[in-house]
Amino acid sequence: MQGNSQQQAYDRGTNIFSPDGRLYQVEYAREAVKRGSPTLGVRFDDGENAGVVFVAGGRLRSSLQVADSIEKIHKTDDHVGVASAGHVADARQLVDVARRQAQVERLRYDEPASIEALTKEITGYIQEYTQAGGARPFGAALLVGGVDDDGSPHLFETDPSGTPYEWEAVAIGGNSDEIQDYLEAEYEGDADADGALELALRALADATEGGLQSRGMSAAVVDESGYRDLSGDELAETIEGHGLAADESEE
Amino acid sequence: MQGNSQQQAYDRGTNIFSPDGRLYQVEYAREAVKRGSPTLGVRFDDGENAGVVFVAGGRLRSSLQVADSIEKIHKTDDHVGVASAGHVADARQLVDVARRQAQVERLRYDEPASIEALTKEITGYIQEYTQAGGARPFGAALLVGGVDDDGSPHLFETDPSGTPYEWEAVAIGGNSDEIQDYLEAEYEGDADADGALELALRALADATEGGLQSRGMSAAVVDESGYRDLSGDELAETIEGHGLAADESEE
Amino acid sequence: MQGNSQQQAYDRGTNIFSPDGRLYQVEYAREAVKRGSPTLGVRFDDGENAGVVFVAGGRLRSSLQVADSIEKIHKTDDHVGVASAGHVADARQLVDVARRQAQVERLRYDEPASIEALTKEITGYIQEYTQAGGARPFGAALLVGGVDDDGSPHLFETDPSGTPYEWEAVAIGGNSDEIQDYLEAEYEGDADADGALELALRALADATEGGLQSRGMSAAVVDESGYRDLSGDELAETIEGHGLAADESEE
Amino acid sequence: MQGNSQQQAYDRGTNIFSPDGRLYQVEYAREAVKRGSPTLGVRFDDGENAGVVFVAGGRLRSSLQVADSIEKIHKTDDHVGVASAGHVADARQLVDVARRQAQVERLRYDEPASIEALTKEITGYIQEYTQAGGARPFGAALLVGGVDDDGSPHLFETDPSGTPYEWEAVAIGGNSDEIQDYLEAEYEGDADADGALELALRALADATEGGLQSRGMSAAVVDESGYRDLSGDELAETIEGHGLAADESEE
Amino acid sequence: MQGNSQQQAYDRGTNIFSPDGRLYQVEYAREAVKRGSPTLGVRFDDGENAGVVFVAGGRLRSSLQVADSIEKIHKTDDHVGVASAGHVADARQLVDVARRQAQVERLRYDEPASIEALTKEITGYIQEYTQAGGARPFGAALLVGGVDDDGSPHLFETDPSGTPYEWEAVAIGGNSDEIQDYLEAEYEGDADADGALELALRALADATEGGLQSRGMSAAVVDESGYRDLSGDELAETIEGHGLAADESEE
Amino acid sequence: MQGNSQQQAYDRGTNIFSPDGRLYQVEYAREAVKRGSPTLGVRFDDGENAGVVFVAGGRLRSSLQVADSIEKIHKTDDHVGVASAGHVADARQLVDVARRQAQVERLRYDEPASIEALTKEITGYIQEYTQAGGARPFGAALLVGGVDDDGSPHLFETDPSGTPYEWEAVAIGGNSDEIQDYLEAEYEGDADADGALELALRALADATEGGLQSRGMSAAVVDESGYRDLSGDELAETIEGHGLAADESEE
Amino acid sequence: MQGNSQQQAYDRGTNIFSPDGRLYQVEYAREAVKRGSPTLGVRFDDGENAGVVFVAGGRLRSSLQVADSIEKIHKTDDHVGVASAGHVADARQLVDVARRQAQVERLRYDEPASIEALTKEITGYIQEYTQAGGARPFGAALLVGGVDDDGSPHLFETDPSGTPYEWEAVAIGGNSDEIQDYLEAEYEGDADADGALELALRALADATEGGLQSRGMSAAVVDESGYRDLSGDELAETIEGHGLAADESEE
Repeated sequence: MQGNSQQQAYDRGTNIFSPDGRLYQVEYAREAVKRGSPTLGVRFDDGENAGVVFVAGGRLRSSLQVADSIEKIHKTDDHVGVASAGHVADARQLVDVARRQAQVERLRYDEPASIEALTKEITGYIQEYTQAGGARPFGAALLVGGVDDDGSPHLFETDPSGTPYEWEAVAIGGNSDEIQDYLEAEYEGDADADGALELALRALADATEGGLQSRGMSAAVVDESGYRDLSGDELAETIEGHGLAADESEE
Repeated sequence: MQGNSQQQAYDRGTNIFSPDGRLYQVEYAREAVKRGSPTLGVRFDDGENAGVVFVAGGRLRSSLQVADSIEKIHKTDDHVGVASAGHVADARQLVDVARRQAQVERLRYDEPASIEALTKEITGYIQEYTQAGGARPFGAALLVGGVDDDGSPHLFETDPSGTPYEWEAVAIGGNSDEIQDYLEAEYEGDADADGALELALRALADATEGGLQSRGMSAAVVDESGYRDLSGDELAETIEGHGLAADESEE
Repeated sequence: MQGNSQQQAYDRGTNIFSPDGRLYQVEYAREAVKRGSPTLGVRFDDGENAGVVFVAGGRLRSSLQVADSIEKIHKTDDHVGVASAGHVADARQLVDVARRQAQVERLRYDEPASIEALTKEITGYIQEYTQAGGARPFGAALLVGGVDDDGSPHLFETDPSGTPYEWEAVAIGGNSDEIQDYLEAEYEGDADADGALELALRALADATEGGLQSRGMSAAVVDESGYRDLSGDELAETIEGHGLAADESEE
Repeated sequence: MQGNSQQQAYDRGTNIFSPDGRLYQVEYAREAVKRGSPTLGVRFDDGENAGVVFVAGGRLRSSLQVADSIEKIHKTDDHVGVASAGHVADARQLVDVARRQAQVERLRYDEPASIEALTKEITGYIQEYTQAGGARPFGAALLVGGVDDDGSPHLFETDPSGTPYEWEAVAIGGNSDEIQDYLEAEYEGDADADGALELALRALADATEGGLQSRGMSAAVVDESGYRDLSGDELAETIEGHGLAADESEE
Repeated sequence: MQGNSQQQAYDRGTNIFSPDGRLYQVEYAREAVKRGSPTLGVRFDDGENAGVVFVAGGRLRSSLQVADSIEKIHKTDDHVGVASAGHVADARQLVDVARRQAQVERLRYDEPASIEALTKEITGYIQEYTQAGGARPFGAALLVGGVDDDGSPHLFETDPSGTPYEWEAVAIGGNSDEIQDYLEAEYEGDADADGALELALRALADATEGGLQSRGMSAAVVDESGYRDLSGDELAETIEGHGLAADESEE
Repeated sequence: MQGNSQQQAYDRGTNIFSPDGRLYQVEYAREAVKRGSPTLGVRFDDGENAGVVFVAGGRLRSSLQVADSIEKIHKTDDHVGVASAGHVADARQLVDVARRQAQVERLRYDEPASIEALTKEITGYIQEYTQAGGARPFGAALLVGGVDDDGSPHLFETDPSGTPYEWEAVAIGGNSDEIQDYLEAEYEGDADADGALELALRALADATEGGLQSRGMSAAVVDESGYRDLSGDELAETIEGHGLAADESEE
Repeated sequence: MQGNSQQQAYDRGTNIFSPDGRLYQVEYAREAVKRGSPTLGVRFDDGENAGVVFVAGGRLRSSLQVADSIEKIHKTDDHVGVASAGHVADARQLVDVARRQAQVERLRYDEPASIEALTKEITGYIQEYTQAGGARPFGAALLVGGVDDDGSPHLFETDPSGTPYEWEAVAIGGNSDEIQDYLEAEYEGDADADGALELALRALADATEGGLQSRGMSAAVVDESGYRDLSGDELAETIEGHGLAADESEE
């Protein structure tokens, strides 16, 4: 994406509009999200159990990097998880905002915040960085998902403009358009957690040349029994079991 | 809209006038409003019941996006609703301002704020972002509508400059000029809620190639019995019933 | 008004003087006042009753806009009104300043502020926006008029530099130079309220091609019995009565 | 005064020196003072009574402007007056500073501030606007004059740099150099108040083509019996009496 | 690395994104890290004892400089050490942050912070300097390593963007790519402290022309018995013992 | 002094160094000091009495300016005086700082501040204006002189960088280099107050074409009996007595 | 040192990195240090007494300047001295920081701060001026030296980046590279105070054309018996005694 001189006149301040009403810094922050690896969320409800599955891709910088440390999926409350894509350090700040806000709401109302309410606290925080001067927008998108007190599963996206979107299944980050096409074609709402995980992995594999390498990836399930990270072995076995694993010799 | 060099000398700061007394950043924020989908408000009073109907267009980014989540119409008090057009994240901040202000007024005066008073609190807030440095104007317009304590219905618009306007029927956002023409031609003040809703839908359909798709749209009625969102099914049936629905096969 | 390069070197900051001692941003704000429709104030004193009449022009954006909502004349205290011209959102902020200040003075001195004292509180507020950095001047002018405790009528203007002027009769906003010429030629100090209103309407009509359309206009009288807005019907009848009405068929 | 490119490199910030040690914004503020009409102060002491006379020129924008309202001479304490030239709104802020400071000093020391002490409070305030960033200098000069507790008359000038000067007789504002020449030639220290007033009027008339028009002008005397504004009639008669009045037919 | 004009348009503010979503100032801060000498961390666990070894290279400016004073490895809590590379003064500020945070966590929870929690406090602090305006990012990277309460050893890196990474063995600073290659080839997780130290020294020697000079270097071990700096003699003897010492005559 | 383009790249901010380590704004402030008239300080100690003599040149803007009002020498404490050169308004602010600080020290330690301690409070204040952004340096230099509690006389200079210098005799302001040469050639440490005054006047006269005009000049002595301003007559007689007076007819 | 255009793009803000990770403003501040005269510190320990000797060069601006007043060596606590080079006003601010910090530490821990701890408080303070916007770095370097509670002598340098270095002997300021070479060749750690002083003087003389002139120079010793300034006579005699004095006739 090359900036031309007309665009450059308006793209260096978060607090100015271009003549056609665009906010270039917010658009560039969306590019920062696309520079990272993809992250997916899939909502499921098989009648007996409902929830959200997260899968995050990731690349290790070296064989000595500890795979667990590329944390992109975080428990923020008993039945809520947050997964991120884009600028990692920015995403972590937003995850901290999510955690604090979840605690504040619990203390204030003596019950957990709904997924939607929590999402909107985060998007309100993000929006302020797109309007006030003196700071840049967050170069990260989040997926906020889990199960509300009434048992209904919800999956929201926050984008760098501070807009919330609710999804049945969604991909953010690198290759997200391609992965979203796969999800749209294959998503079925009445899957169980395993089916949702399989869908997410197949969608990710479809957009990944040479198959999936579980090292660097992470996955989690939030359902009525709470938030649970998949162990590295679990994830590796699942990938293997579905025939999605990369040929290790090529690693 | 292409900026020329004379214009560019004055259009990058919210706190400067151009030589002919214009505030370009405010004008660009109006362009941001026009980039979104249209939102309509129609006031009605059939002698027995009076109120305001809101209809908001909207586009889903994917078939997996949850339609309800494109919330553009919000209850802000028992008899007050706020609908928005333009930059979504900006609009949400203003809706939060509206809600807080409605609560504050209730607490202070022990009665609900009038629609007009509430509108002016919001426009005062918007204006400050057009004068003080260090932030940009809000790229969103609102419709504030409902029924005052005396039973009279009111419908106001707030624009990015912070000016309030009162309307019988009005459209903001994309294609608003075309839709306003339709409203001017067809509006009758003594309609009931159903008639007002039909007018709004017909005006929107008139400006929408291929007919209306209820997914992504939303509608609400505020009348003497309070604020009520139309369910997706209600809205779909109404659109269908008036013969305004898009051919689904083309979706 | 085209800026040349010498002028452009000094016209983008409110806190710099040009080499010849001018404040360009204040001058540009005066242009913003001229972009609006005209507003007039006329002082009268027939020996039995004294006061000030305000008349404000205005254009409706659509036949569906509620005419009353183009409020340009505001009661700020029992015997004080404020009328504005220029950037509407800016003017409203100043009207709020005027109202708050009127209340503060009443509380502090246990009597209403004089028209002059109130005016100077407003102009002091306006001036600060022309000197401190980080904000722009107000693009609005006000007329502050009414009757002091001693029964004497006063009419002041505040301009964007923060200078107060006292007048017998004055026009601000669009076409104000032309209207002022008419006022200078026809003003008689011993008119009664009706005479003052007629003068204001005639002066406005003189500068308005095709006659006056009462929709969008507003008028008010402040005299010893207090502040009173003219109803739309009253205003229409008065305009009609003086033969100043536009031919409605041409509207 | 045309800025060249060398000068322009240093003349847009109040907080930078040019290579030759000049503060251009302060110099431009002095130009703003010269753009206004002239104001004069003359100290007198005939042995029996001592004080200061102020005379301020002024132009009415219209025959409907209330002449009294071009206030350029203000009582700030029982025996102190302040007259101004230059940017009117700036001058008023400084007059308010003078009034507040006079009250503060009275409260603190239980006696009126000396003319000199009061002047230096004002100049200290002015200086800060020439050094700190984020604001511009005041485009106004003041004359501070009156009688100290010991009966001695004093007349000070404050300029836009914040430097105080003490004078026997002085002119500030438009044409001040020409008027000062007249004062230097004709001033006699042992005049009485009437003589001082006559001198001021003659000096002003000498620099005014076509003679003096009392409408728009103002004058005041501060002596041992306190501060007193001349009424419009008094001033007109005095001007007439000295044969200095403009031919009204030419007005 | 030469900047081109497209890049230069976006690389001078920490709070702007480039059109392709990059933060140039953060990337330049990474270059600052590479300008310094290398620092290594190696995690070990032989079944009986587990911990982390740090080795830092360094150059003396003069034979009179006290070798100990090039402190790049710091004890921050009983079982935690922090080693740095890059801009020394920046690194020290971060070490102070680490120390304060370690104390705060101890006071708050009455137990030492985990290595991971401590790292994330530091990265959160670093991130803020990459988003808010008015300051630059930190031109330093840290290694945070030690033993958690459960006996498990951990080694984290913080980079100038504020991203944390966990490692088995890692090099930061000058030549870090080359050294990392060596570590990847030779690292064995079941070494003891001596083996880990030997690996670090061999990796460093491999990237250092002419062998290691112990003056200017430093090393430390954190294991279950706590944090321990190696004395200069110990380090010299170890280097000598492994045949890695530079020929002193060439110094 | 003409700025070249290399210099201009670094000379408009007080908070940047040039590549060769210079602070141009401080150097330009020194030029501002040289634009004013000269001020001299001479220390004396004849064995019986010791102190400091100040002499300040000055030009009257008009014969009507009150000569006393060009105050450049100020008593700041019982045995301390401060004389200034350069930008008058800046100097006054520093004199106020000196006075406040003298009072603070007296209150804190219950004894007068030493001349040196007082000087360093002032220079610390001046330095801050050369380092923090948002303000310019002071365009004034001060001489701080007097007698310490132990009877020893001291004379310090503060320059615009905030550096203090102690002197036996010194000139600041316009022509100071030439005057300093005279002082160096003629100064004798064992003079009495009259001798010191004569030396200062002769040095000033030597650099003043046409001799000294006492109007506009001022002088003061600080010795063991305290601070004393010379009256205009005293000064005139002394100048006359030493044959240094200008030929009045040429004035 | 001439800046080229690539460099100039990054060298005017303290809060930006250049593409190769440099902080130009810090480098320019180091140039400011080199513009001053040299200052030396030499650590000694003869077994019976240990400490640090400081010698500072200096130039008098005039024969009338009081030699003592070029204070570059300051006692900051009983056993601690601080010597400076570079921008004098900046250095004084840092010396004040050192003094305050020494007091704070004493109060907090009821014992004197170690030389190292004190140094690091100062360098932390210096670093902040290189990272936060709105101010420039300090253009001064310090030597902090003395004897710790355990009797060990320490000598630290602080540079404009805020990095501390510990030395046996070191020179900062003008000609420091040349002087350091001399120190490296001749330094012996077991000298006594006189030997250390002689070394410092010889090193300084070696880099000074025409020999040393004691006027303007200063020296101090900090050892177990505390901090002691050498008197001007002592210093002159010592210089003379070692045959290092300049030929006075050439002065």
